[in-house]
Amino acid sequence: MTDSLLNERELSFQLYELQDTEALLQRPRYAEHDRAVFDATLETARGIAAEYFAPHNQKGDANEPTFDGRTISLIPETKVAWDAFAEAGFLAAHHDAADGGLQLPEVILRASMAYFNAANIATVAYSFLTIGAANLVKSFAGEELRQRFLPPMLDGRFSGTMALTEPGQGSALGDLRTSARPAGDGSYRISGQKMFISGGDHELTENIVHMVLARLDGAPAGTRGISLFLVPKFLVNPDGSLGARNDVALAGLLHKHGYRNTTSTVLSFGEHEGAVGYLVGEAGKGLSYMFQMMNEARIGVALGASSLAYQSFIHALDYARERPQGRLPGAKDPLAPQVRIIEHADVRRMLLQQKAYAEGSLALCLYASSLFEDAHTAPEETARREAGELLDLLIPMVKSYPSKYCVIASDIGIQVLGGSGYIREYPLEQYYRDNRLNPIHEGTEGIHGLDLLGRKLQQNGGAGYRLFLQQVRGALREAARDDHCAALGYVLAGALDRLQEVTENLLGQVAADPNLGLSNATVYLDLFGRVLVGWLWLRMALVASRALAAGATGSEADFYQGKLQAARYFIDWELASVDAQARLLGAGNRTSFDMRDSWF
Amino acid sequence: MTDSLLNERELSFQLYELQDTEALLQRPRYAEHDRAVFDATLETARGIAAEYFAPHNQKGDANEPTFDGRTISLIPETKVAWDAFAEAGFLAAHHDAADGGLQLPEVILRASMAYFNAANIATVAYSFLTIGAANLVKSFAGEELRQRFLPPMLDGRFSGTMALTEPGQGSALGDLRTSARPAGDGSYRISGQKMFISGGDHELTENIVHMVLARLDGAPAGTRGISLFLVPKFLVNPDGSLGARNDVALAGLLHKHGYRNTTSTVLSFGEHEGAVGYLVGEAGKGLSYMFQMMNEARIGVALGASSLAYQSFIHALDYARERPQGRLPGAKDPLAPQVRIIEHADVRRMLLQQKAYAEGSLALCLYASSLFEDAHTAPEETARREAGELLDLLIPMVKSYPSKYCVIASDIGIQVLGGSGYIREYPLEQYYRDNRLNPIHEGTEGIHGLDLLGRKLQQNGGAGYRLFLQQVRGALREAARDDHCAALGYVLAGALDRLQEVTENLLGQVAADPNLGLSNATVYLDLFGRVLVGWLWLRMALVASRALAAGATGSEADFYQGKLQAARYFIDWELASVDAQARLLGAGNRTSFDMRDSWF
Repeated sequence: MTDSLLNERELSFQLYELQDTEALLQRPRYAEHDRAVFDATLETARGIAAEYFAPHNQKGDANEPTFDGRTISLIPETKVAWDAFAEAGFLAAHHDAADGGLQLPEVILRASMAYFNAANIATVAYSFLTIGAANLVKSFAGEELRQRFLPPMLDGRFSGTMALTEPGQGSALGDLRTSARPAGDGSYRISGQKMFISGGDHELTENIVHMVLARLDGAPAGTRGISLFLVPKFLVNPDGSLGARNDVALAGLLHKHGYRNTTSTVLSFGEHEGAVGYLVGEAGKGLSYMFQMMNEARIGVALGASSLAYQSFIHALDYARERPQGRLPGAKDPLAPQVRIIEHADVRRMLLQQKAYAEGSLALCLYASSLFEDAHTAPEETARREAGELLDLLIPMVKSYPSKYCVIASDIGIQVLGGSGYIREYPLEQYYRDNRLNPIHEGTEGIHGLDLLGRKLQQNGGAGYRLFLQQVRGALREAARDDHCAALGYVLAGALDRLQEVTENLLGQVAADPNLGLSNATVYLDLFGRVLVGWLWLRMALVASRALAAGATGSEADFYQGKLQAARYFIDWELASVDAQARLLGAGNRTSFDMRDSWF
Repeated sequence: MTDSLLNERELSFQLYELQDTEALLQRPRYAEHDRAVFDATLETARGIAAEYFAPHNQKGDANEPTFDGRTISLIPETKVAWDAFAEAGFLAAHHDAADGGLQLPEVILRASMAYFNAANIATVAYSFLTIGAANLVKSFAGEELRQRFLPPMLDGRFSGTMALTEPGQGSALGDLRTSARPAGDGSYRISGQKMFISGGDHELTENIVHMVLARLDGAPAGTRGISLFLVPKFLVNPDGSLGARNDVALAGLLHKHGYRNTTSTVLSFGEHEGAVGYLVGEAGKGLSYMFQMMNEARIGVALGASSLAYQSFIHALDYARERPQGRLPGAKDPLAPQVRIIEHADVRRMLLQQKAYAEGSLALCLYASSLFEDAHTAPEETARREAGELLDLLIPMVKSYPSKYCVIASDIGIQVLGGSGYIREYPLEQYYRDNRLNPIHEGTEGIHGLDLLGRKLQQNGGAGYRLFLQQVRGALREAARDDHCAALGYVLAGALDRLQEVTENLLGQVAADPNLGLSNATVYLDLFGRVLVGWLWLRMALVASRALAAGATGSEADFYQGKLQAARYFIDWELASVDAQARLLGAGNRTSFDMRDSWF
């Protein structure tokens, strides 16, 4: 079996052919860098991922964290990997040089993370969460708090968590009950229970910084009453040394389907005197801060899904190329040698489907990262604003499409291997189990469907949606002039028409009756996601077509032919049901809405 | 959480309203029985499943079998459950009274098995395999062999396995290499390695009877050279007492994704003097014997998938009815109480989808069982022949539809519970893992697609296919006269037209070029499966509509309304993409066929 992580050729296609990542070097923020720095960063990520993360991926799964009532035990390789990641500077890769960061573009950080996700998503989750928590501290904490907590989070002495969910509330953050009361010294005392907190306890770092959503005493009900607090596991003295243990207790470990080397915890805040917490930013703005960070977290989750799908794909491909079995349908001679299973068209169908999902999802995540980048560092104010509007619109699909379809890609990986895919002697079933978390955390499809149809489409007067249509139309115009892509563009144009019709129609339905109008929002989200990824596949096909026209040969020509064929697969087969879905949505199908509890 | 197994009301609907199981009592074979015997059998199955199987389902998963080099250890509850199953007579439920059996109809045995599958599919697998092996002995072994081995297999002293697969061959049975040479005393010496043999070793029974496919020395290559041998773990003396240990060794245990309490083994036959084996039936007919039994095994696998999907459904339903979270889109007051998640239309959509897959699959399996029954015990020769032809045609869908869609139903169960679905503290993720085996064993979708399009459609001059069309048209005529069902029938009629067109078209493509014409056979299989299950949903809707018209009230009316709504869901949403699939198939889409290894 392969020990590859992702595919360097694919990543370079995505970064430098599909996107123009080199153009970022023109921006003042990246003027000190050059292409070689980007490539060296990716090479470092790949090397550390291969050396320190991949070798214990299976071991961490088979030996999940344990808690003896006092201490959590993780396999020791986890700490070695954490240190290697931190020492190479990846915790601070996108931070300012002034803060000790590498000041690298978002898309380079993401592409680096793809290697770590591919190698061992459960171990790198501690880093992923710390990066997210540090982003919150950096963006919203006051100067004193930031100086005390950010440096050790960037150099790896402290790790971080996002402590949102509670046992009684799940996706409805407005109902959270964890409380905060002023202690009189500028700090607060936090009390309550949080659940499903990844990385909520462990011994990897000196300290753990929990970013906790809680409700100030007397704050209004609902989302407007939620504030953000920084609650460390150990208090930190003004000189940076560690103080007393804070009143944050591990109430229990949860035992997951996959992603096992990441602790999933129930945390009790303030069982005794109350946990010391510090208000981050302004009271009542906790949820808005969290949402500003959530776009990054959601791209990150989607990228994790894409990376795991890619691993499933390359392992299945490797197996299909090596495993002899059976003969082609036309062969009648039982003495003829067996063929490798990749020679069966149905196996190629499965591999094409995996490729289409994994590479389409990867393209979507890196495109979203580039929008995030542009929203922050594009030279023109208009470009920054438009990138932000487009990203806001697309985030529901950016999160949901890879989370849904990359799990399917991992499932197909099991199927390609058959019985071998089903046993733990091969890595496919673990990729599946790890990947299955992704449609759950950072918002289920149901949540994102409501967000898209109930909010995002009409945000800023529909500006993001109009920008999306413009982008797709641009690619369609290019495709019309390209021999390889004209037919693909024609199909995508039809799907785009259906999307536009159904969008207009559904917005009318929502205005007339929100409950009924939103009842099929998840199906609409799926349809939109496929059109979006269809557009990315058309763009990949256009790049490939130009490269072939320019005379690519040998393995390069093969690579581009593969891109064209996967684009054909996607546009033929994955867009085929857009018409039917659009028809049912447009007709306001009431089947789910009308179903009653008592009828089940 | 619920501790229910399946749903008695549903099973009674399937057996006595959708099917006319009572009519079997008219047949001479069942004349001694009455409806009360059928019901008591089901009640016994439910009771034993609940008392002896369900309680250790999670424990068996968490403590999989171990092998210390000498002995296999299973959790002790496994043996208690095996004994309870055997003592109640389920190993012999369908066998003749003269052989010590209960002489019950196939469909009653299957419905009983559904309870055991729902309770603990990994533990009941030992029984399932023994039933299959005993069927082979009963049908094809000579008198002496049958007398020596069948009684202890029916009373539970011996268990059985099906030893087909080898490491180098997988689905292509024609390439198996295990050899058999005559020993001169009428027995044979078997040598070779078998892999993925479920129940291949354990200490549950005094002896294990392996039904082994092997190749006689000098036999022709390919499938015609394969014979069937009975190879016991311990030799059995003519008086029935156990003799020496046979030369069958456990080479290793495999570690599965789910189904963990079933040992999955690598077995070595004849490492030393050669394993003693006895030819079953005639030389060279091994595969044809196996295929005659495979229809039963395939219905059994599909029923396992359906049972697990049903458990996923009822657990998700129970959770959705109890778990409060969030508010409906129109609600603006953050102080309003949370609603139970079943009040969200999207959760009802997921539950409807689960219900549609689980109940549709259950209906398909029990319908296939009734065809199996008719093929053997229908009074008229024509009816027996037609039932056999229809079953032969439909077996690829009977195996594949439940295996594919019931795994999706189990996946949806995880999603309904969200974070709780992902952790092992709830049973949903185990149902998923257990269910994931079903699309792999007893033939993958790829294998069944080729079987359907390359062989079954034209078998007996297309007789089975014509019978299927007649059956569906019969239901369509009924639907046209029914207020609730006319619109559903209209949609199904369109799907049937598409199926007919594409079938004719594809048969032409296959005749012109088998490799190309069969390249999308799996997609065709999926399309056919959805039309088939759509027909069963229409029939369920017709029964429900008649019951409502006849004045059903209260919970009975609710039950029938649920059937109608699930039929609407299935026919609206699951048949929606038939047109698009048929168009691509009809056009002979070449995407997968044309893809090349080097392009990946």
